[in-house]
Amino acid sequence: MLTMLSKTQLSFLRSLHQKKFRQTYGKFLVEGDKLVRELLTSQFKVDAIYKLPNAHYEIRNRGVEVFDVTQDELSRISTHENPNQVIAVAQMPAPDIEHQTTVIANELVIVCDNLSDPGNAGTIIRTADWFGITKVFFSLNSVDIYNPKVVSSAKGSLFRVKCHYLDLKNLFLANRHLKAYGTFMSGENIYTAPLATHGLIVIGNEANGISHELLPFITDRISIPQFGKAESLNAAVAAGIVMGEFARKN
Amino acid sequence: MLTMLSKTQLSFLRSLHQKKFRQTYGKFLVEGDKLVRELLTSQFKVDAIYKLPNAHYEIRNRGVEVFDVTQDELSRISTHENPNQVIAVAQMPAPDIEHQTTVIANELVIVCDNLSDPGNAGTIIRTADWFGITKVFFSLNSVDIYNPKVVSSAKGSLFRVKCHYLDLKNLFLANRHLKAYGTFMSGENIYTAPLATHGLIVIGNEANGISHELLPFITDRISIPQFGKAESLNAAVAAGIVMGEFARKN
Repeated sequence: MLTMLSKTQLSFLRSLHQKKFRQTYGKFLVEGDKLVRELLTSQFKVDAIYKLPNAHYEIRNRGVEVFDVTQDELSRISTHENPNQVIAVAQMPAPDIEHQTTVIANELVIVCDNLSDPGNAGTIIRTADWFGITKVFFSLNSVDIYNPKVVSSAKGSLFRVKCHYLDLKNLFLANRHLKAYGTFMSGENIYTAPLATHGLIVIGNEANGISHELLPFITDRISIPQFGKAESLNAAVAAGIVMGEFARKN
Repeated sequence: MLTMLSKTQLSFLRSLHQKKFRQTYGKFLVEGDKLVRELLTSQFKVDAIYKLPNAHYEIRNRGVEVFDVTQDELSRISTHENPNQVIAVAQMPAPDIEHQTTVIANELVIVCDNLSDPGNAGTIIRTADWFGITKVFFSLNSVDIYNPKVVSSAKGSLFRVKCHYLDLKNLFLANRHLKAYGTFMSGENIYTAPLATHGLIVIGNEANGISHELLPFITDRISIPQFGKAESLNAAVAAGIVMGEFARKN
């Protein structure tokens, strides 16, 4: 049924464009047909769907409110210039407190240290999912992973990969039995370096690399050989090359 | 000297935010301290620099006009919310007509087919530069590489790598002696496939891959092994993994 959204609804939905309100409510927006379909088949709890009247979604779980809205209303809710037929309000998964001191065994985990670009964060989550890595941890000062640009660039992988914010020092302290790999300009050539089947792959900040206080925890400094003149690689590309190389060797 | 920018100047500079006017004038904007410094040491011709009065740049070439502007004026010229002290107007290099039928020898070249995302284009140019690849060709329907987001994500590599728009069919026809590698879901595992020291690496469109009419020109279908559930990799990450693997093998 086509109902006009109330001012309160509109203002609530628009507030989710901002990190502050996403955190206050523990909710975030998922935009576009393909992503919403992936959301609806995931473990994530969905509060509501705002869709054009001619769009249809199969809702398997209780408690999802469905609203038919006009194109104009959709545009007002959306963070995109040209929204694609549907926007959902999803609940952030409860922070998994156990993970604060989690001990990792027999798997490869991505650790993002002060990662700041939302496109990079989403792309790293997507790439991890491609290579079968099921956990991506973020330092507390990293970008908000429920930022619409992260949600969109993760392409559904945000609903499959376990993403957590952690105090990374505690993580490293709890996992001293594991290798922690970091990329540096002057590390061991990643193509010839031995790479373990499990451990932590640390991705540093886009401008400054891995933060000073975490350097003592890095056990293996690796490096992607440079043949040309670019000063550095994009963080998500470097992460992709590293994950690919772990996959190739193991 | 601090002079107020005229309305005509402001409107010209702001017009360069749009592809249409960049193409009309053959000029584009380069924003921010680091990028402008790289621009000034490159082969690119620079028309003008708009900078805050306390910022200093060494101008080696004639014909570069330097204007001191206020922070407010800088914000009005800029495509960024928080511009960083300087914006330059640079000239697009003249299209190198020779390249329309260029025959490639003894090198690896990146070919982007209908690439649409500016961040991906810039990142691919930057990654090519890292791996010592000196040419990146774009199909005529690819994103405008003088788009501010391409300029910014290429991080100076746009001034070093030769980037050209081409009719890709002509390029393939002129280079039938070379291997043309394309990534597909069901290609040969890139980690075990033989990779030549020179040839064309073709990067397809973000949503649709390599276009139908170019498929007959692909000599080697390669594939990045998928271990998890993501449907695909980001185009720039896939390109990075492929370039890295060519570098590793050669």
